[in-house]
Amino acid sequence: MPATVPDPPAGGYHDNADEFRRRGHELVDWVADYLARVEDLPVRPAVAPGWVRAQLPTSAPQAPEPWEAIVADLDRVVVPATTHWQSPRFFGYFPANSSPPSVLADLVSSGLGVQGMLWSTGPACTELETHVCDWLVELLDLPARFRSDGAGGGVIQDSASSATLTAIVAAREAATGGDPTVLARLRAYTSDQAHSSVEKGIRVAGLTAGQLRLVDTDADHAMRPDALAAAVAADVAAGALPFLVVATVGTTSSMAVDPVAAVAGVLDDVDLGDGRRPWLHVDAAMAGSAAVVPELRPLVNDGLARADSWCFDPHKWLFTNFDCDVLYVADRAALIGALSVLPEYLRDEASESGAVIDYRDWHVPLGRRFRSLKLWFVLRRYGAVGLAHHVREHVRLAEGLAARVVAHPALELAVPRSLNLVCLAHVDGDAATQRCIDAVNASGAFVTHTRLAGRLVLRVCIGQTRTVARHVDALWEALAAGAGRG
Amino acid sequence: MPATVPDPPAGGYHDNADEFRRRGHELVDWVADYLARVEDLPVRPAVAPGWVRAQLPTSAPQAPEPWEAIVADLDRVVVPATTHWQSPRFFGYFPANSSPPSVLADLVSSGLGVQGMLWSTGPACTELETHVCDWLVELLDLPARFRSDGAGGGVIQDSASSATLTAIVAAREAATGGDPTVLARLRAYTSDQAHSSVEKGIRVAGLTAGQLRLVDTDADHAMRPDALAAAVAADVAAGALPFLVVATVGTTSSMAVDPVAAVAGVLDDVDLGDGRRPWLHVDAAMAGSAAVVPELRPLVNDGLARADSWCFDPHKWLFTNFDCDVLYVADRAALIGALSVLPEYLRDEASESGAVIDYRDWHVPLGRRFRSLKLWFVLRRYGAVGLAHHVREHVRLAEGLAARVVAHPALELAVPRSLNLVCLAHVDGDAATQRCIDAVNASGAFVTHTRLAGRLVLRVCIGQTRTVARHVDALWEALAAGAGRG
Repeated sequence: MPATVPDPPAGGYHDNADEFRRRGHELVDWVADYLARVEDLPVRPAVAPGWVRAQLPTSAPQAPEPWEAIVADLDRVVVPATTHWQSPRFFGYFPANSSPPSVLADLVSSGLGVQGMLWSTGPACTELETHVCDWLVELLDLPARFRSDGAGGGVIQDSASSATLTAIVAAREAATGGDPTVLARLRAYTSDQAHSSVEKGIRVAGLTAGQLRLVDTDADHAMRPDALAAAVAADVAAGALPFLVVATVGTTSSMAVDPVAAVAGVLDDVDLGDGRRPWLHVDAAMAGSAAVVPELRPLVNDGLARADSWCFDPHKWLFTNFDCDVLYVADRAALIGALSVLPEYLRDEASESGAVIDYRDWHVPLGRRFRSLKLWFVLRRYGAVGLAHHVREHVRLAEGLAARVVAHPALELAVPRSLNLVCLAHVDGDAATQRCIDAVNASGAFVTHTRLAGRLVLRVCIGQTRTVARHVDALWEALAAGAGRG
Repeated sequence: MPATVPDPPAGGYHDNADEFRRRGHELVDWVADYLARVEDLPVRPAVAPGWVRAQLPTSAPQAPEPWEAIVADLDRVVVPATTHWQSPRFFGYFPANSSPPSVLADLVSSGLGVQGMLWSTGPACTELETHVCDWLVELLDLPARFRSDGAGGGVIQDSASSATLTAIVAAREAATGGDPTVLARLRAYTSDQAHSSVEKGIRVAGLTAGQLRLVDTDADHAMRPDALAAAVAADVAAGALPFLVVATVGTTSSMAVDPVAAVAGVLDDVDLGDGRRPWLHVDAAMAGSAAVVPELRPLVNDGLARADSWCFDPHKWLFTNFDCDVLYVADRAALIGALSVLPEYLRDEASESGAVIDYRDWHVPLGRRFRSLKLWFVLRRYGAVGLAHHVREHVRLAEGLAARVVAHPALELAVPRSLNLVCLAHVDGDAATQRCIDAVNASGAFVTHTRLAGRLVLRVCIGQTRTVARHVDALWEALAAGAGRG
């Protein structure tokens, strides 16, 4: 150590309990103040690439820095370069919504610092996760086969991308029985509107993008069961092995909902041997939370009883901060069989007894945070009634916006409004639509684009926790001004 | 909605800013109190499987619950069923250590609620991550090729398991060039002491466990380069394609360090075509943080300049709460090429310009938390000096414990002490060693076991943030009492 370094403090360099308390209160207040003013900040920061790094020293400090300097940099460097996902004016992608009970439960999770790879390394972490997953089966009226008291169960993953990869690997192993010579014959199917994570998962799992068939969609951008049937039949005729269909409940571009029951029906005619059908995974990352509203269930839960796995993102629309996806499987043995590796140093009595769940075998990572705490806090603090109220409100606001679009002479819906997503375009074409996008984003709100049938589309996704009517009104004003001919 | 449900509150069901502040302060205090008393709790809770679930109602509540009821259940249900990873008496596995700046930065991350999949969706999230990864290259004296200003770069992942999978996929794509017919010929190599995540990653990536060669280790449980060379040569002679070696810097069982430079030397003789060598990934999840101590670098950084990728876990030994692994690659193009899928809805100007990093292409998930905040807070609040001090202290405590073991008539080291891990056994055999394990764990401290050369071994891993001499002294008393013949 260089001679200039002072002797360590008597207790070492750790902050003591009083300091933790003081700085904790300070940062809770900082977050509260941030959330109170975030609405007034433009959602997109005005920084160029490299700005953040230019504000920072090129090396980590040798000596400890005072708390004041660190906290001050949140306002000096972080906030000016942050895209404000917690702004009620965030209408892009799907908002990553959040809530006080979720953020504070996450604080408790960080503080407990539990690593719940095994039941024994965190009994509360494990059992609370199983419990809230079972609660959600009832709350969302999901199939009972996803409950942990049968052959299935739920598990929290970081993201729908990871959940989809997990489902792909389980389906792959179920189809090949571990025989690698079968790999090249496998074919998977999803719609041409499915999320990019399906192709990514297929590739990570050792298949090629060419082994994933992108099935045609109908006028509403939902998978066509007849096109699926034709693709499957052609592959079977060519000697290939259809092993997986990923249906989407709420596509990213337009919130289209694939007809899951009809898709499952197509699979009834496919036999992998021993009477096994291809695996049906349903990606409800975007729309799954809508099932908390009873009247929306017929739309989003249709056919789920036939699904082998299903995932949704509480970090999108259930007021639970990122990261929190929930994956359900009907047959947990298939999942565990695909992912379990048991070295000596992870063996223990509880696991060997078979009486417990060890979630390490339910996903790629070994270690895991205590993520169920935030779902537990949210489900209890809002109650079923509170969650349904806010999801319903988002849908109502989207209905209102869609009506305004329909009534506007220069704007039109690119597809019918679906749940909380309004997709619109300018009648004069892409350049005019781009001007609308630019006008909204210049106002400080934030929308993103997609293309539907080759046409540029402005997406308005109304799902941020604090978004209420006045935010949509302000969005509309900017949009209408950008559209002209109001 | 049932008729019994009251009208929603005027502002909906969200807690307001004052409530967030009040409950936030309350929960900061709860965490501070927990951390102050965690030392007095037995690390392992005394609950049987099913106890947690039996304390909870079978359904989620219909109506919102008061904060008081929710917070009270932390003490009623969670703490009594928690394995206390933050106890200074936790010596099992590798502790998931933590610190006040890390926990509080994680609170800020949850509060900001940024989803940093693209540069544009979180410029600060992205650039701060690149920046702290570059800081760490200097701080740990890693090869310059891992810096982002060359062809390489670092990225935060949730765990070493995920980082290893990412490296495997990149290596697989580099070797096959996307040609699936090559898959069956691929062979990977790691030592018979490597972490189970290597086999798991191999299987997730579409290869079989049979395509992973477990290379023999020497008396110190480090990979034998001659055995590696022989295995590679045999496979090449049989027409197979060696594409990946995973070397371990700090094995889980005994903190063995593979001779990375010699391993790289073996690979010099293998040509995948075009002069490309097999990918060399180094898993330093356990021991990588030791490089913050200059005098330990010769042990843990030897040969790293030859590695294609390297990962370590700040959530193990750099006082950063789970989850936080850092993966470096020498050639980021290989990684991005293997994982990038670009749908229209994720296109934007900054990404198309090529001037920015979009970390979504650096791992399996699309979405990502603002994890660099906690590393940034930790690196600044401790400084290089503070981090080195505490890691050095853990090693010093392990040295002291090892000396006591050597001096004890009934105990012996199963292998020489390596860094902060002491592996010991009772001279009377496995049953006596098990009694030692049970005695320590009955004392309220926590150790775990492994097997080395077939022999049951008690592992003492000294890495919890607050572990100081008196905790190791107490552990020794329980251990010596369990050993008898003291």
